[in-house]
Amino acid sequence: MLMTVDVCPSPALYPYYEKEGDIVIVADIFRASTTICAMLQNGASAVIPVADIAEAQRYKSEGYRVGAERNARKCDFADGGNSPFDYPREKVEGKEVVFTTTNGTQAIEKARNCRQLFVGAFSNLQVLTEKCLSIGGRVVVICAGWQNKINIEDMLFGGAFAERLSEKSEITIDSDALRIALELWRKAKNNPLEYVKDTDHYRRLVVTGADGDVPYCLQSDTVHFVPCLDKADGKLKI
Amino acid sequence: MLMTVDVCPSPALYPYYEKEGDIVIVADIFRASTTICAMLQNGASAVIPVADIAEAQRYKSEGYRVGAERNARKCDFADGGNSPFDYPREKVEGKEVVFTTTNGTQAIEKARNCRQLFVGAFSNLQVLTEKCLSIGGRVVVICAGWQNKINIEDMLFGGAFAERLSEKSEITIDSDALRIALELWRKAKNNPLEYVKDTDHYRRLVVTGADGDVPYCLQSDTVHFVPCLDKADGKLKI
Repeated sequence: MLMTVDVCPSPALYPYYEKEGDIVIVADIFRASTTICAMLQNGASAVIPVADIAEAQRYKSEGYRVGAERNARKCDFADGGNSPFDYPREKVEGKEVVFTTTNGTQAIEKARNCRQLFVGAFSNLQVLTEKCLSIGGRVVVICAGWQNKINIEDMLFGGAFAERLSEKSEITIDSDALRIALELWRKAKNNPLEYVKDTDHYRRLVVTGADGDVPYCLQSDTVHFVPCLDKADGKLKI
Repeated sequence: MLMTVDVCPSPALYPYYEKEGDIVIVADIFRASTTICAMLQNGASAVIPVADIAEAQRYKSEGYRVGAERNARKCDFADGGNSPFDYPREKVEGKEVVFTTTNGTQAIEKARNCRQLFVGAFSNLQVLTEKCLSIGGRVVVICAGWQNKINIEDMLFGGAFAERLSEKSEITIDSDALRIALELWRKAKNNPLEYVKDTDHYRRLVVTGADGDVPYCLQSDTVHFVPCLDKADGKLKI
């Protein structure tokens, strides 16, 4: 099957990369998309992505379990922040978790109208690839970035995804953004952890003491499902 | 002197990269910024960048020499398109040239309010570096891109500029976009022409028969001045 892949380097650029009928993968490797996968892995029945803090607080007052992060720190009112380790099974199993983050949940908001929206992370790379292959067509990886600036780790994921897909299918490469993502991934893939140590976001995570999450965020294929946005209720589910 | 450099990968992202007091370099390597340098090199007294076609046509009806390009093709009403070879000395010497292009002149429009706006190309790389060094502070290279998508050749220029500056001064690298630009440039610099052959814009230039411009657009240091935006009248001058 011939597939087309593109990488949109920032949510703010999605209007220029968007085409009708796209499958969109939202990737916020450090850490929202990795954490969404971890929540569902640990038995959450759904994740409710919300873009703003006020809405998350409203859910909290209604008794929901709420994850909230801004600027790489957990928000005070929330049950957890943006670490995949904030949501162990005993805290989320069978529950819907409301989640708002600096970048990832904003990116989901931007792409709500696409054909199908998936959450992508290194943790679900293989199953994501298979899912996209089973649907076919054009897939756009939206890099969540950092406050609409582009970042390296999400671009690396775009490159890794395209490479994985190209092992299973012929893919069309007609985008400089994708070429750049592949170039970075080829350079980083032998040791992604070392590669990301000289990036903006890693440095930010060091400052907030969250860099311990990074090895998990870069580990491939620990999760065997794809979180998918249910357009009827706006929730992410397996 | 310590300088800070950043690369803004698309004009649409400039609001997120902008800081007060920035020197901005607008780079549209294929081909507007290279062509602006060529016009001034060949004796044009100024280049008047305009963002839209209607305004360029108005100037044309008033007797101005007008360059206009959309989608890599010369507009019918114009005297020249977006090739540096469209503006030989006999056509532009002593004249003000009005110029509108798909991407480059739009990028200039976006950054009009910065401290100083320069036009950057491989052709004026060295003198541009010296000019920025003589001013100091933070320099942002805005990549003109293609219809707000990011492209490789402008990112390469961002990397080449940062490398050149780092040979003369200590520079702060605290931006993933700059790291990506440097990574691409290190990969491409031994043979930029070969490297760009697998890019969106080169392919577009092949289709319109304009790929013959590319070697000139990638040649360093053929021009020894920096086009600068005069805010009083909106014209680019030496």
